[in-house]
Amino acid sequence: MSIFKDNEGRPQGAKLDKAAILAAVKFNQEGLVPVIAQQFDTLEVLMLAWMNAEALAETLNTGRVCYWSRSRKALWRKGESSGQVQLLKSARIDCDGDTLLLAVDQTGPACHTGRRHCFFYKFEPDAVVIDGEVMISPDELYKK
Amino acid sequence: MSIFKDNEGRPQGAKLDKAAILAAVKFNQEGLVPVIAQQFDTLEVLMLAWMNAEALAETLNTGRVCYWSRSRKALWRKGESSGQVQLLKSARIDCDGDTLLLAVDQTGPACHTGRRHCFFYKFEPDAVVIDGEVMISPDELYKK
Repeated sequence: MSIFKDNEGRPQGAKLDKAAILAAVKFNQEGLVPVIAQQFDTLEVLMLAWMNAEALAETLNTGRVCYWSRSRKALWRKGESSGQVQLLKSARIDCDGDTLLLAVDQTGPACHTGRRHCFFYKFEPDAVVIDGEVMISPDELYKK
Repeated sequence: MSIFKDNEGRPQGAKLDKAAILAAVKFNQEGLVPVIAQQFDTLEVLMLAWMNAEALAETLNTGRVCYWSRSRKALWRKGESSGQVQLLKSARIDCDGDTLLLAVDQTGPACHTGRRHCFFYKFEPDAVVIDGEVMISPDELYKK
């Protein structure tokens, strides 16, 4: 049994111990959990990235979203090179404690391609279509 | 280079080969990709689950969402035991080809706890609070 399973039947508004929940987050074998970032007002899903325990703690403590970069193997304070930061509005974890959903306020494009969100390859019956306009060119985004 | 990287600069409406995109999906070491399910009209994020290549092909071909159950190690046609199915409205893949975003029409609760979505553990400054009403009790959901 886990703290998530133990508490899933509790009613709306029930309060649980935050440190105990944080200690029970189910990180994968690489020490990471997937994190969905959703724009808090438009409800667009912007991206999915990963956090380790340190990135999660920093995000909750500072209110600025910090991921773990799997390619760079380092903490990744979203926007540190592009200037396009994510401010945290709220954080949730799911029923089995292995996925986070963040409501964020994203400055400009969330995607490294300069698009607002990363999900711009859309499946159609006979093709995949680019569905997403480039807001700022990557050359412009990363010249800083 | 990947087909995703190669095409990321193309304009809105550009068409790509669907079979080539499907062949390039970046499954993890277990052969899975994370999949975000979002209710198509309200834009609520309902859940995150996983697909292997077979589940993805079945979902795109049938229009009914099929995941891979990591606990049961089997295809999981969402709603097969609870009756709470997900119909596919659209499917997208992200800029680096390792995450899917589905727009779905979810019948009733998406969560095994009987709640509409799985993200009902909400972080507050000094606690984690249950934020999500049970729509149908799990006993009722799974008695079928």
